[in-house]
Amino acid sequence: MVYLTRKAEFAASHYYHNPDLTPEENQRIFGKCNNPNGHGHNYTLEVTMRGEVAPDTGMVTDLDRLDRTVEERVLRRFDHQHLNFDEAFAGKTTTGENVVVLVWDLLEKAVPAGILQKIGLVETRDNYFEYAGPKGERVA
Amino acid sequence: MVYLTRKAEFAASHYYHNPDLTPEENQRIFGKCNNPNGHGHNYTLEVTMRGEVAPDTGMVTDLDRLDRTVEERVLRRFDHQHLNFDEAFAGKTTTGENVVVLVWDLLEKAVPAGILQKIGLVETRDNYFEYAGPKGERVA
Amino acid sequence: MVYLTRKAEFAASHYYHNPDLTPEENQRIFGKCNNPNGHGHNYTLEVTMRGEVAPDTGMVTDLDRLDRTVEERVLRRFDHQHLNFDEAFAGKTTTGENVVVLVWDLLEKAVPAGILQKIGLVETRDNYFEYAGPKGERVA
Amino acid sequence: MVYLTRKAEFAASHYYHNPDLTPEENQRIFGKCNNPNGHGHNYTLEVTMRGEVAPDTGMVTDLDRLDRTVEERVLRRFDHQHLNFDEAFAGKTTTGENVVVLVWDLLEKAVPAGILQKIGLVETRDNYFEYAGPKGERVA
Amino acid sequence: MVYLTRKAEFAASHYYHNPDLTPEENQRIFGKCNNPNGHGHNYTLEVTMRGEVAPDTGMVTDLDRLDRTVEERVLRRFDHQHLNFDEAFAGKTTTGENVVVLVWDLLEKAVPAGILQKIGLVETRDNYFEYAGPKGERVA
Amino acid sequence: MVYLTRKAEFAASHYYHNPDLTPEENQRIFGKCNNPNGHGHNYTLEVTMRGEVAPDTGMVTDLDRLDRTVEERVLRRFDHQHLNFDEAFAGKTTTGENVVVLVWDLLEKAVPAGILQKIGLVETRDNYFEYAGPKGERVA
Repeated sequence: MVYLTRKAEFAASHYYHNPDLTPEENQRIFGKCNNPNGHGHNYTLEVTMRGEVAPDTGMVTDLDRLDRTVEERVLRRFDHQHLNFDEAFAGKTTTGENVVVLVWDLLEKAVPAGILQKIGLVETRDNYFEYAGPKGERVA
Repeated sequence: MVYLTRKAEFAASHYYHNPDLTPEENQRIFGKCNNPNGHGHNYTLEVTMRGEVAPDTGMVTDLDRLDRTVEERVLRRFDHQHLNFDEAFAGKTTTGENVVVLVWDLLEKAVPAGILQKIGLVETRDNYFEYAGPKGERVA
Repeated sequence: MVYLTRKAEFAASHYYHNPDLTPEENQRIFGKCNNPNGHGHNYTLEVTMRGEVAPDTGMVTDLDRLDRTVEERVLRRFDHQHLNFDEAFAGKTTTGENVVVLVWDLLEKAVPAGILQKIGLVETRDNYFEYAGPKGERVA
Repeated sequence: MVYLTRKAEFAASHYYHNPDLTPEENQRIFGKCNNPNGHGHNYTLEVTMRGEVAPDTGMVTDLDRLDRTVEERVLRRFDHQHLNFDEAFAGKTTTGENVVVLVWDLLEKAVPAGILQKIGLVETRDNYFEYAGPKGERVA
Repeated sequence: MVYLTRKAEFAASHYYHNPDLTPEENQRIFGKCNNPNGHGHNYTLEVTMRGEVAPDTGMVTDLDRLDRTVEERVLRRFDHQHLNFDEAFAGKTTTGENVVVLVWDLLEKAVPAGILQKIGLVETRDNYFEYAGPKGERVA
Repeated sequence: MVYLTRKAEFAASHYYHNPDLTPEENQRIFGKCNNPNGHGHNYTLEVTMRGEVAPDTGMVTDLDRLDRTVEERVLRRFDHQHLNFDEAFAGKTTTGENVVVLVWDLLEKAVPAGILQKIGLVETRDNYFEYAGPKGERVA
């Protein structure tokens, strides 16, 4: 098993707000992230695939196809967008946690079964999120 | 003359739109940056100060005071905000070019005369802006 | 299970010396790190927490509280300090290995049970340490 | 168990070509990487060792010896070389996948048994490969 | 005057050899870089443009056009190539110094007069080259 | 004129203290940097040389000789040392400002006349110092 991680960047806006909470609760829990005008980040996405090394190519996956899949399913949808306007976040906050889970769900159904290992997301230089799927025992 | 550069980060939203242009022109010129829902970045601000080294402290400027000035004049104003909602950008697009010029103007009047050398701004990992003031002959 | 990693920096001095060894052994084993005047590093600490994503906040942990805990238990104690003067290192060398284990012990008792996943520590651009606790089967 | 990761860089050339495939297949599968003149990368190698912390040194391994081993077995062999000319790649493409497996094999037999945890390899700023050995259940 | 720096990466092979020198001289001067099989790098190119900020766009230059120019004149020519095979290096070594001068010459004739400020080139994590044109008084 | 910047790292301790000031003044001016036990940093040194490109080598300077000079004059003196114990800092604080000026003085007399352009020093991820000599008109 060799692991390949492919990175890509996207720039997006978001803000944190839960309509089931009062304005005061939203402010207390989310602080400056609750500003309804929104703020944004350069997100760095990390997609980790696993696989046996194919003897003829020396690769664990078709990298061009992976790039196209990430482009079509993730970058085209979120790059230069406001995450709160995406239907997938209806009823959910646009936290890094929810973003990695969503990206996992989008990619897991678009790549060969069992090959997606982990989604990582750098939100700021001090914040990093990872998700390895519902059965994903981690890792470290 | 020694030069000190101090970095700070802020996360903000923006989008590009000039109301004097038609929607088609806005789209042609600004492309994906014209999306009215906005998108965002982690901006890295670089403030460069110059000065003689003071013999008693070994410093060119009071770093704590510089940090407070940057915090009060720039970070508090732009961090976790939408730049297009800031009054300083009325009639202006929120490009990196306009942001560095604005930050220069905000800081130049708040620090001792002649000590501000340059404002740098990293917008994405591939985009970097610099401004050294109206008389600022650069530099390379 | 989603994993959140939070980074923080601290600057500290240290040197390696085991009083149970002869000066010659200390020099042979620790080399330039044995200089009793000490040297120092910018340490980057990485604290990884794991958890279910809370439906109301979309988060695995209260990030503000985590930041306060890291500040109170780790940064305030080690930032701009000489590690060899800290009582926790009595009888121990101040290696990256011992630092990550100590930070784990300090934080593990200060956060909700079972939520701390790993401590990482960047000591230089070429040296990185990780510890996932006494039961921590890694990982890779 | 504490994990120590040591980084090192080497600059090398390579290109992808499988002589068992037709020129058209090589071009289709490997694209611009198939150019027989070759291209190159600054590779960042990451060697992760695991171990108990020795009470007298506070270390999991002898770092100087590890550095010498990496220098002798890997850097001296691949730095400023063309990977396709190395006999270990006879019949194999010089992909990141095959490089991490080869480096694992070279180092695993040169360090104490059971102490090598993982080999990582940064090929470009967007491509990262990892291998944890034939029994290496990962990880994330 | 505002300065915009745009980065791009390319991966290329090269080696140093001057046919007017003896093999011994080549080896003495160029050392490991003289290996005729070549080695390679991930080069990071930095193109700095200067200009007044246009009131209607807030920009100093048309970034899309700049990207196309860099793609057509530089990346398409050097990415995934062996620099020694490029006709521009006939009779010249493929050092970072010669690469930045060549890229300046290629871009200076392809962009509006007077707008190109500097070419920067990161060759390895420890080597960086800059050229500001034949009249380019630097800078620091 | 082409500019070559060469980077090198060293790890050192220091603290700020001016014996001509009272303990209260030292504490007020230098804050946490005044702790007499010291703290430390991984310093990244940047040495920028300028020159015409030599036609036979394609280089502005002999890089191996530069590396040896930096090693002998700077790294061997400061790496894994406590800066306050160095005689050059007698009567001076060990600030980044004083370090870049000292390194300039050490290297300027050791390299061919007129070839040293600038010394840069990264002290922390947010602090950067530059000095271009007593006649050094900068730059930005």
